[in-house]
Amino acid sequence: MNSKIIIAIDAMGGENAPFKNIEGVSFFLKKNKKNDVFFNLYGNEVLLKEELSKYKISSDKYKIFSTTTIVSDEETPLTAIKNSKESSMWKSINSQITSNSNITLSAGNTGVLFVISRMLLKTIETVSKPALAGLWPNKKNMNVVLDLGANVECDEKNLVDFSEMGAALYKALFPDDIPKVALLNIGSEEIKGTETLKKAYAKLKEISAYGDFEFNGFIEGNKITNGESNVIVTDGFTGNIALKTAEGTVKFITDSLKKSLTSTLLSKFSIIFSYFALKKFKEKLDPRKFNGAIFLGLKGPVVKSHGSTDAVGFYHSIDLCYRIIKGDLMNKIKNNLSHIDEDNKQK
Amino acid sequence: MNSKIIIAIDAMGGENAPFKNIEGVSFFLKKNKKNDVFFNLYGNEVLLKEELSKYKISSDKYKIFSTTTIVSDEETPLTAIKNSKESSMWKSINSQITSNSNITLSAGNTGVLFVISRMLLKTIETVSKPALAGLWPNKKNMNVVLDLGANVECDEKNLVDFSEMGAALYKALFPDDIPKVALLNIGSEEIKGTETLKKAYAKLKEISAYGDFEFNGFIEGNKITNGESNVIVTDGFTGNIALKTAEGTVKFITDSLKKSLTSTLLSKFSIIFSYFALKKFKEKLDPRKFNGAIFLGLKGPVVKSHGSTDAVGFYHSIDLCYRIIKGDLMNKIKNNLSHIDEDNKQK
Repeated sequence: MNSKIIIAIDAMGGENAPFKNIEGVSFFLKKNKKNDVFFNLYGNEVLLKEELSKYKISSDKYKIFSTTTIVSDEETPLTAIKNSKESSMWKSINSQITSNSNITLSAGNTGVLFVISRMLLKTIETVSKPALAGLWPNKKNMNVVLDLGANVECDEKNLVDFSEMGAALYKALFPDDIPKVALLNIGSEEIKGTETLKKAYAKLKEISAYGDFEFNGFIEGNKITNGESNVIVTDGFTGNIALKTAEGTVKFITDSLKKSLTSTLLSKFSIIFSYFALKKFKEKLDPRKFNGAIFLGLKGPVVKSHGSTDAVGFYHSIDLCYRIIKGDLMNKIKNNLSHIDEDNKQK
Repeated sequence: MNSKIIIAIDAMGGENAPFKNIEGVSFFLKKNKKNDVFFNLYGNEVLLKEELSKYKISSDKYKIFSTTTIVSDEETPLTAIKNSKESSMWKSINSQITSNSNITLSAGNTGVLFVISRMLLKTIETVSKPALAGLWPNKKNMNVVLDLGANVECDEKNLVDFSEMGAALYKALFPDDIPKVALLNIGSEEIKGTETLKKAYAKLKEISAYGDFEFNGFIEGNKITNGESNVIVTDGFTGNIALKTAEGTVKFITDSLKKSLTSTLLSKFSIIFSYFALKKFKEKLDPRKFNGAIFLGLKGPVVKSHGSTDAVGFYHSIDLCYRIIKGDLMNKIKNNLSHIDEDNKQK
């Protein structure tokens, strides 16, 4: 087994590809001193070579796999499988099978990435539906939130799978911390919400005995960021609405704040004094730090970066890939899922 | 017909009742110079008289209806109807039938308020399900958002009713502005989301021809506050999660900001200079200004104030009641709903 972590990168995916993708790789290599990473880069060879030399990236850090097409933003999941076999996205995913890549990172078309990943890598046998998980800051550290939109409708089995997989992801990323699962609901009492949520609640209470996670029951939307739970589980419709509502709220507030702080000469003056404090505040909430959603439930890990991110954002999703493999995510998922199976057999 | 707006107040409902309730009444009377409001107050006569005299409220502004019990927070919707017939909440709702009240305001137990209101006032014949609507700030002014939690599951007919009723509420509160309805979804394209949402989309597109509102189609959570739409329609589960997630996000950010701005001596110093700017910022987002959710779809209007609000918050929900009656909400709802009927008949 190769002792290096090998990350396959769809170097042509995203609005600023391949430029920001390669710059992100260079950021990562500058920060990572362990010399335990290798990149399989998929894209236009000439373009990539040019960018790689710009950042003086040593050729023992990567291998270029030349590809001829790019998945466009207009491509639909329905036609993608026929159209994109020669694309950088397809090849970077398939490299987990045909080559030695441990994980794939793309900033390209999300729907297409999901469909191709699912087809090439296959869903884990016992998983009912794969999910899209993301990171979300909380008061103490970070939440894993899933599903963020892969599955519009979910049953209790899906939610239980998401909980075990989300807990595995949390443990892989934060090995010193305990995953604390909560189901997003409109009240914290056991009797609240849909039948699906009540059934998932009962099952999670039972299955938490295996010790993969603590189960905190139901939480409401206003408790997502309080840090008492760190694996927030919900269906893809609700998760997507919650995530985007939070994003919109952050923008609304920071815009209002900016407007207020520049409304008078005196308040403008004050910014000089609070410059470093505000900078720290901005840094803490910098969305680029949370860039990268993870497809969970496939036989190989795939990370989706925001399409419009810059090199810093792309660097953070490379770092996420690195930590996922370092934290042995796939074995943790396997272990956690086996407990669902075990629990079902005992009945 | 009485030319005054008569507001029935459950003076014993809420954590700070009857003190903050009566103080809220006094705030309102100080601000309202039109002399066109009268209060029917329900509660403990001795207590109420004491509070009313404290604020020197003129006795031609109110009538006290003495009640003997209070609906507790522990009361459930199931047992409330049997237990609460003598309560201030019950009597204040019933006064729309037995007395001359135009609208009811309570800060008491939400579930019980909803059940009693529904039983006493009855649902409008053509409305499939009543909804809970709230106000939510946006970049330009204010959104009406519904349903906020009355109905966990909704079909397309519910969503269409909510749209017409929400548009009527918006028009009653902001007579100079045009209601712009949008359905909350996980994408803005017509093909996104559940079957229910797609059917509601088609019907709303059709029915918007009557001119009750402009229809902006689907919007995602991050667009709720951008001001392009102002009547945001969704099922009660999603609406509740979105509202509370936004609340939690506001708290998370303002807490982080506060922490940053007081982290160093220099930044603490800066607060002196930005004091007024930050005060303006805080005022703009003051949740007390949005205090008051409206039950829509009953034959009489009922407003729910936050249980823990103070006198300023209670004042704002009194003001909401006033504007609802001033804006002729009930007739506007009737008019809008008749268009659904008309449209159905044409098929």
